[in-house]
Amino acid sequence: MNRQTETSEKKLTRRDVLKMAGIGGIGLLVGAGGMKTFFPQPTQAEPSASAAASKGDYIPFYGKNQAGIITPMQDFISMAAFNLTTSSLADVRKLFQSWTLASARMTAGQPVDDEIENPHLPPVDTGESIGLAPMKLTITFGLGASFFDDRFGLKSKKPAPLVDMPRFNSDEINPDWSEGDIVVQVCADDPQVAFHAMRNLARIARGKAVLHWMQEGFQRTASADPSGSTPRNLLGFKDGTNNPIASEPKLADEIVWANSAESPSWMTGGTYMAMRRIRMRIEVWDRSSLEDQEATFGRHRHSGAPIGKSGEFDDLELGRKDSTGKPLIAPNSHVALAHMDGKVKILRRSYSYSNGMDVKTGQINAGLLFICFNRDPRKQFIPMQQKLASADRLNEYITHVGSGLYACLPGAREGGYIGDTLF
Amino acid sequence: MNRQTETSEKKLTRRDVLKMAGIGGIGLLVGAGGMKTFFPQPTQAEPSASAAASKGDYIPFYGKNQAGIITPMQDFISMAAFNLTTSSLADVRKLFQSWTLASARMTAGQPVDDEIENPHLPPVDTGESIGLAPMKLTITFGLGASFFDDRFGLKSKKPAPLVDMPRFNSDEINPDWSEGDIVVQVCADDPQVAFHAMRNLARIARGKAVLHWMQEGFQRTASADPSGSTPRNLLGFKDGTNNPIASEPKLADEIVWANSAESPSWMTGGTYMAMRRIRMRIEVWDRSSLEDQEATFGRHRHSGAPIGKSGEFDDLELGRKDSTGKPLIAPNSHVALAHMDGKVKILRRSYSYSNGMDVKTGQINAGLLFICFNRDPRKQFIPMQQKLASADRLNEYITHVGSGLYACLPGAREGGYIGDTLF
Repeated sequence: MNRQTETSEKKLTRRDVLKMAGIGGIGLLVGAGGMKTFFPQPTQAEPSASAAASKGDYIPFYGKNQAGIITPMQDFISMAAFNLTTSSLADVRKLFQSWTLASARMTAGQPVDDEIENPHLPPVDTGESIGLAPMKLTITFGLGASFFDDRFGLKSKKPAPLVDMPRFNSDEINPDWSEGDIVVQVCADDPQVAFHAMRNLARIARGKAVLHWMQEGFQRTASADPSGSTPRNLLGFKDGTNNPIASEPKLADEIVWANSAESPSWMTGGTYMAMRRIRMRIEVWDRSSLEDQEATFGRHRHSGAPIGKSGEFDDLELGRKDSTGKPLIAPNSHVALAHMDGKVKILRRSYSYSNGMDVKTGQINAGLLFICFNRDPRKQFIPMQQKLASADRLNEYITHVGSGLYACLPGAREGGYIGDTLF
Repeated sequence: MNRQTETSEKKLTRRDVLKMAGIGGIGLLVGAGGMKTFFPQPTQAEPSASAAASKGDYIPFYGKNQAGIITPMQDFISMAAFNLTTSSLADVRKLFQSWTLASARMTAGQPVDDEIENPHLPPVDTGESIGLAPMKLTITFGLGASFFDDRFGLKSKKPAPLVDMPRFNSDEINPDWSEGDIVVQVCADDPQVAFHAMRNLARIARGKAVLHWMQEGFQRTASADPSGSTPRNLLGFKDGTNNPIASEPKLADEIVWANSAESPSWMTGGTYMAMRRIRMRIEVWDRSSLEDQEATFGRHRHSGAPIGKSGEFDDLELGRKDSTGKPLIAPNSHVALAHMDGKVKILRRSYSYSNGMDVKTGQINAGLLFICFNRDPRKQFIPMQQKLASADRLNEYITHVGSGLYACLPGAREGGYIGDTLF
């Protein structure tokens, strides 16, 4: 160990470690430890005092990729699309610069900017997260196809994989819950921290962009299931058993991250997000037999195991037949169709939602805010959804009511900003 | 120690302790420990295996009072009103009997009933909380004034304090979000556990009652603020600083629990709940100066201290004046009006809500699901709200859009059911 390293290590405080984690870190590394060298640098995002209480609580905003993609799912989501009201690219640039600085601070548990104690001005931060820990807050930005129209002179830069989302069989898409120039996905282990972030981003956008839609979601919290087993959707079934393990970087390169084979170079480190708001007819589902429900998913409800097997992670073996020669897992079951011969994979990152009662029907207005990331939706999400839309037994119980496809920008380095490879 | 007690104590397992806590226990006692004798009895509600992992996780359903009233606030709420579609009192009785059994089981982390593994029938429980801990689930039932109309022959039993909620100055009440024959308040430290409970109660009601309205809410989770300081509302201010300490039983008797002076004997152990859905104009609020915001509440934003003081819990001293003779705390500030000369108190138990974007205005549809409990709303909540509605500076930023007043029934003993003192 040379003298310089020694000195640096001596000075290392918990706060420094947190600062360090913000430098070029990616969400994936949080909590993994094992940082070996130390290069102190100024940073715009030092975690707050409360953050320091729990290192694992803080996910760095800056990095090669945006956080909130291969980051393990947090408990809550607040998601919104914005439409730009400006037609100036300089304004868009300013918006993303402000959003970047605010996001880096908020993810570190700080207010959106240093509070200037001028009582004659509105507070810089809306305040409802004062004193709260960062709670693994991540903020992820993407651009819809409409962003690449005539307004900003960026038509030629539109990535080929960012197609218009096709209308699928049995879609009942409400345009009020779909698309948008910009998507913002806020995730955190606390609903007030997530709300605070989205609200302040909307506030910062004033004069440049307005909300187009917004939807909150949840999963069972980690403390309700300390074993960390696969969460269940609101139909009572485990959801995400076959999700590719995103912590294997090679798999993420193959499935998630934009590749120069299909995407322009400004998308290096980015990915594509498909969003579907899927309303579940839970009252109808609740009246169907357990047998029907299990045949619909192709899995046993309690264990999550493929029909006829006992372990959740047992191989599907779609070819197996019962004594009468009928396939054990129906070819039109959800799991059989989504399997896509094992060749097409996406990274799912979905949340349940409940919007109270649907005044029109008197039923509970709940379902799934389906989110997935993929390298090229033309070859991954879209063909998979085409297959599901045409035959999935689950379609009797669900309706797709919102839809969007977005190019999620690469991560930003400190001093840069989200979108700086494009704008 | 006599022989019998000794034997009993020898047999005492953690499961037994949990069972015991269900016998005549009240929410208040959870986690307080100190149980000294042991009378093993059969119980319908044994906590699930996952519950056993964390004793403090489980709040007994049975008791003199319903839980969820003086119980310390959980992180999430799912609240709904139901309207009865039957006009048979026998049906109402059956409904409350079924709801009682299901509630006792769910609050213990169990499915609504023992799962009968008949694949040809719908599952008894909808399944999305399988494997989840009880997460301090409480379920609290109340009756609206409309319950005491001509349908069930109970007109003469209507408690005098259960008046029709008056319309207050500047109210913009939507009947779709107000009143209802029955109110159900579900609270838990997990949103999926709360959703599951409400959904299964709605399912059990089928053929007897339908949903009238439903609203979910949250506060900052306990893990985001391990110090347990007063939570902040979505205007960024601490909310509940002056809430009476409900864990002092004497105070609860005075403020919360129905008294024979005003209430019929069947309400002994019950209370009255006032519900107000309060929409916050957060975009307007966010444009007002810090000075205005603080003058509106009568408190400093960061500390929560009364204007001119430094500690959140410092005395209000409404008489103090600045050097020009102007009161430091404006007489029309929220805190000055709600103070009611220190003579009128209620037990607040409110949650924030966010319902995404308001499609009509493009603004965030968020606010406060105000809930309070009081012994006689004619002398507590209603005069307080009249005072606030007429002058509160906060009215510039909020609108009351939903309203309800309910008689919360006494608790049930094991073998009995919620409402058995009335039906």
